[in-house]
Amino acid sequence: MGTMQAYTPPTTSLPPQGRPFELRLSPTNSSQLHNHTALTPLIFLLRAALIHPKKLAIKHPERGWQITFDVWAARCLNLAFALKTLGGKRSWKSPPLQWEKGMRVAILAPNAPMILDAYHGVLAAGGIVVPLNIRNTPAELQYVIEHSGSSILLVDWELEAQLTPEARKGRLVIICRDSGGQDKEDEYEAFLAHGRQQWDLAQQEEAKRHPEAPLSDWALLPSPPEDSPCALCYTSGTTGRPKGVLTTHRGSYLAAIANAIEASLTPDSTYLWVLPIFHACGWCFPWASTLSFSTQLTLRKVDPERIWRAFREEGVTHYSGAPTVQISLVNHPGASRLPQEVKVAVAASAPTADLLRRMEELHLHPVHVYGLTESYGPLVRRYPKPEWQELPLDERARLMARQGHGFAAADEARVVRLKEVQGGKREVVVVNVDGEERLVDVQRNGEEIGEIALRGNIVMQGYYRDEESTKGTIKAGYFLTGDLAARHPGGEIEIKDRGKDVIISGGENISSLMVESELASHPLVLESSVVARPHEKWGERGHAFIVLRSDSPVTPHASPQSPSSSPSQSHSQGGEGEGGGEVGEKEKELVEDLKRHCRDRMSGFAIPAWWTFVEALPKTSTGKVQKNVLRGRVAKL
Amino acid sequence: MGTMQAYTPPTTSLPPQGRPFELRLSPTNSSQLHNHTALTPLIFLLRAALIHPKKLAIKHPERGWQITFDVWAARCLNLAFALKTLGGKRSWKSPPLQWEKGMRVAILAPNAPMILDAYHGVLAAGGIVVPLNIRNTPAELQYVIEHSGSSILLVDWELEAQLTPEARKGRLVIICRDSGGQDKEDEYEAFLAHGRQQWDLAQQEEAKRHPEAPLSDWALLPSPPEDSPCALCYTSGTTGRPKGVLTTHRGSYLAAIANAIEASLTPDSTYLWVLPIFHACGWCFPWASTLSFSTQLTLRKVDPERIWRAFREEGVTHYSGAPTVQISLVNHPGASRLPQEVKVAVAASAPTADLLRRMEELHLHPVHVYGLTESYGPLVRRYPKPEWQELPLDERARLMARQGHGFAAADEARVVRLKEVQGGKREVVVVNVDGEERLVDVQRNGEEIGEIALRGNIVMQGYYRDEESTKGTIKAGYFLTGDLAARHPGGEIEIKDRGKDVIISGGENISSLMVESELASHPLVLESSVVARPHEKWGERGHAFIVLRSDSPVTPHASPQSPSSSPSQSHSQGGEGEGGGEVGEKEKELVEDLKRHCRDRMSGFAIPAWWTFVEALPKTSTGKVQKNVLRGRVAKL
Repeated sequence: MGTMQAYTPPTTSLPPQGRPFELRLSPTNSSQLHNHTALTPLIFLLRAALIHPKKLAIKHPERGWQITFDVWAARCLNLAFALKTLGGKRSWKSPPLQWEKGMRVAILAPNAPMILDAYHGVLAAGGIVVPLNIRNTPAELQYVIEHSGSSILLVDWELEAQLTPEARKGRLVIICRDSGGQDKEDEYEAFLAHGRQQWDLAQQEEAKRHPEAPLSDWALLPSPPEDSPCALCYTSGTTGRPKGVLTTHRGSYLAAIANAIEASLTPDSTYLWVLPIFHACGWCFPWASTLSFSTQLTLRKVDPERIWRAFREEGVTHYSGAPTVQISLVNHPGASRLPQEVKVAVAASAPTADLLRRMEELHLHPVHVYGLTESYGPLVRRYPKPEWQELPLDERARLMARQGHGFAAADEARVVRLKEVQGGKREVVVVNVDGEERLVDVQRNGEEIGEIALRGNIVMQGYYRDEESTKGTIKAGYFLTGDLAARHPGGEIEIKDRGKDVIISGGENISSLMVESELASHPLVLESSVVARPHEKWGERGHAFIVLRSDSPVTPHASPQSPSSSPSQSHSQGGEGEGGGEVGEKEKELVEDLKRHCRDRMSGFAIPAWWTFVEALPKTSTGKVQKNVLRGRVAKL
Repeated sequence: MGTMQAYTPPTTSLPPQGRPFELRLSPTNSSQLHNHTALTPLIFLLRAALIHPKKLAIKHPERGWQITFDVWAARCLNLAFALKTLGGKRSWKSPPLQWEKGMRVAILAPNAPMILDAYHGVLAAGGIVVPLNIRNTPAELQYVIEHSGSSILLVDWELEAQLTPEARKGRLVIICRDSGGQDKEDEYEAFLAHGRQQWDLAQQEEAKRHPEAPLSDWALLPSPPEDSPCALCYTSGTTGRPKGVLTTHRGSYLAAIANAIEASLTPDSTYLWVLPIFHACGWCFPWASTLSFSTQLTLRKVDPERIWRAFREEGVTHYSGAPTVQISLVNHPGASRLPQEVKVAVAASAPTADLLRRMEELHLHPVHVYGLTESYGPLVRRYPKPEWQELPLDERARLMARQGHGFAAADEARVVRLKEVQGGKREVVVVNVDGEERLVDVQRNGEEIGEIALRGNIVMQGYYRDEESTKGTIKAGYFLTGDLAARHPGGEIEIKDRGKDVIISGGENISSLMVESELASHPLVLESSVVARPHEKWGERGHAFIVLRSDSPVTPHASPQSPSSSPSQSHSQGGEGEGGGEVGEKEKELVEDLKRHCRDRMSGFAIPAWWTFVEALPKTSTGKVQKNVLRGRVAKL
């Protein structure tokens, strides 16, 4: 993966020599309360650079370089000064752009160090970081760039082609060649070097103005107030336009601490970036890892081959990802038991019993977590109990599948009562008490279905420039997630379905997730997704899309232009072989077998009426199945 | 240590049956921001009771009982309601006392569950907890009770005699027999049972008033605002009157998180109370342990015999204590290597090389921490580096002896420049810059001596009802600790002396700590303390008090009424055999040997001019040597 030893960071990346690097946010002054400093995730990098300057912060094996915490802190400060001095008398090149507090800086990058820099440097400059979804189409990217009002774009060279001329127009675009300074033509590196000059000049001026007590380094920058905006993450938008989730410094600080505690990160940890770093600020792990003095390992291209190599060669101890990522890992030919224990945060859905067994055999140990971009990534997890170790695997997987309880630093995750309104739709019950609104908890019986409601410091401030959406999801002091769940006697929540995924059939609500879980226990099923399809008699019935194991006797119908290809292509998919058309004998038999399997496990109305075998399911960049794509397909049938 | 199995908690200690225990602070209402809940350490107990209700929260082996998190949460809520309803129509007995927000509740108790209850129940009622120092004299206790304006006293029966009639006058005194409900005469238990009635009644009323969405349990109590006062801890007062250190909910929350991270507490941890729980809110460990779902083990009487039994029988993984506690542990006849690793936070001073070796042999692994009551207990620690493992023990002990860097969630620990003012005294340099005051850092050369300055969320709000002292220690937005230190090139601080312990001799500053460290390497010295004594020629010179190892040829002079007895007695001590009077031949030889030892290691002026051999040194309840007592003795010579 490249020779790390040969790498020497450019001098502009090095912390100042011959005088102490001052790691203190904001000027030291008497106007600030002595017992109240702003909560901001920036402080973690400063501590790491002060306490463990020579410890590895980031390893980037593909490009053959790695940097220590002191070098990383210096580079992030370079970035902050390059941004902060824009439009000043020694500004970076045209277009003339005047830096302002709260300016949005959008990042378009794969899992590489530049985006990790941005989560620190942009914030240190007083800006808001806007991580872009690299799987978006150029039109979607343009929409997000325009909607967020981003004035500056930091773009990885491999993704530059994704920018439309409109997206670039009037904006400062800096292209990063991901060279860490080895490539003289790397514009991002030149930008950092320019920032370093500005920083040095600012320091010289300060030393002249206040020779007795000059500030230096980070102390030259004001600390962002804790309730000020930190990041703007656009949801992947399974329906409608992407929405911009606005977070705060306080929330990011506490979410980082919570994630570090829940993941048991320590200075001995190596966190591998499998999750896209752009996704919900990488679940706050760019900060959580730094707080814990852990090493972060970046892979530009996330594939099982490279991941397994990193597991073996780099001593990875932690990563995060959806079950679909886990499936590809356990199925990889190179998979074999690791000497070290690897902790895996699994989101989107829980591992099945089979997946759990295979992961544990490989020394990969899943923790099931739940969250949304609106909750800074995961903030609910399943807390295992010692007595589970005595249980059969199936039972253990079933218990682990519940979403669980709120993280450290999060508030209680509630499930609140719903009422039916017109057209079979449901709405949260709001009770007015002495002029105050209250939500009502469902019973803790594991059965009553309500909506998951969250509040607290690790919940977004609101949707950016979208008051209507914000108002629509914030009720009675709670953020309503749109996810349907029950609550068990132990207080843990269990998702029954995403609100829009429920199938309403003859007045009955069918949880598509429940049907999928039961299908997962069929020996030939690798993955499945069940969506609502209009039905003459019942209103709706389920349509199941099945990915079979490679040893199955049935060949999937879908061609290479099937839903397994990129989201933009799958929209145009036709429906050959779907809807109960011509199917082979073997396929008919398999469908009957699957129906029998269902009949033993669910009410008759819940058994899917249609079955399609596909090579793969359409997924978002974060591994979630795109049910909207599947619904689009069945709507055309 | 008693039969735990036989214990059944009283019904009033049990969480409500047949309906979920609602674990949510403050009413759920729409007037609160959805993304901003108050930081308070109370939330940790609620989470523990919700997530791990049946996990052991507190073990109290001496009295034969232990309780789970759900039972503990119920008992703390009982306490809150008993307090909160005082003066209402169904109040607890006379004197008639009207509960008010911010009321002070003082606790006089050994390391037993009641004081752990108070750190939660008093706060939940909206009160301020005032943990009293059980080593104080009755007059000192009375002073603290009166100064804090405590209206309610929760007192362990063994300490009731310490209360003067004046201390009790006009106050509600509840005596706790530490029975956990086994003793029908236990007034504290009756108070809790009364609280439970109030809680049930409040719930019934709420259900009547708001049948559609009744609040219950903790939700009936408003959450304390995060910047509101939490605890009032009086410093042990080595000079002058004790001062009341006022902390906040926000600070306690963040300090608890920081301590949990730094101590690596997990659900598998058992924290043994060796440190007095009253001391600086037990360094926030009553909350840190709860956040981590750890079990706390209480010992009313802290002695090496019981501690070793607890190590063996209860699987202790963590405790905290001064080196003097460690010395008594490693010297105990029952000491032998433990199967489990025990993490030990060592404060006040660092373990010597010899102590470090002996601790490690026993599987006790020290982390060196530093802090003050004003900083919620420790907030600076030494972060070990992997390469230390290669070093000889002496070198490792020397490196570990530095105090280090600020904790997670703490700000940078600074050492700021001093200037000489009249009479050889020193004062912090304050520079005025554009109307703002700034402190100036010392050079990071390990040599320039300055004062340790702290700020941030884990620093006290101020001294209660003592604006003058507060103003005297808060300068330019920093709390000045009074401790003198240098800063090394790595940024870590190293204490050179407590400010008042410096010996000023012929214009030279002698660090008494340095002299003591050097004496510790003499094979016959167990402990020593060096204080300033007036000297005709040099102004001051050092007077060394030495505790010899048991195998030394010299017998200490001090009688049983020596400084080893309680602080209140040692004040009256005379000085037979001190001041260079009649001494035996062996003693003379030993003094010469010690002087030779010093001569190889320090400047001549730093070598103590007087030597006294004692059985033990006078110490505070937390194991700090009371140099004021020793100074009192030498002043009389």
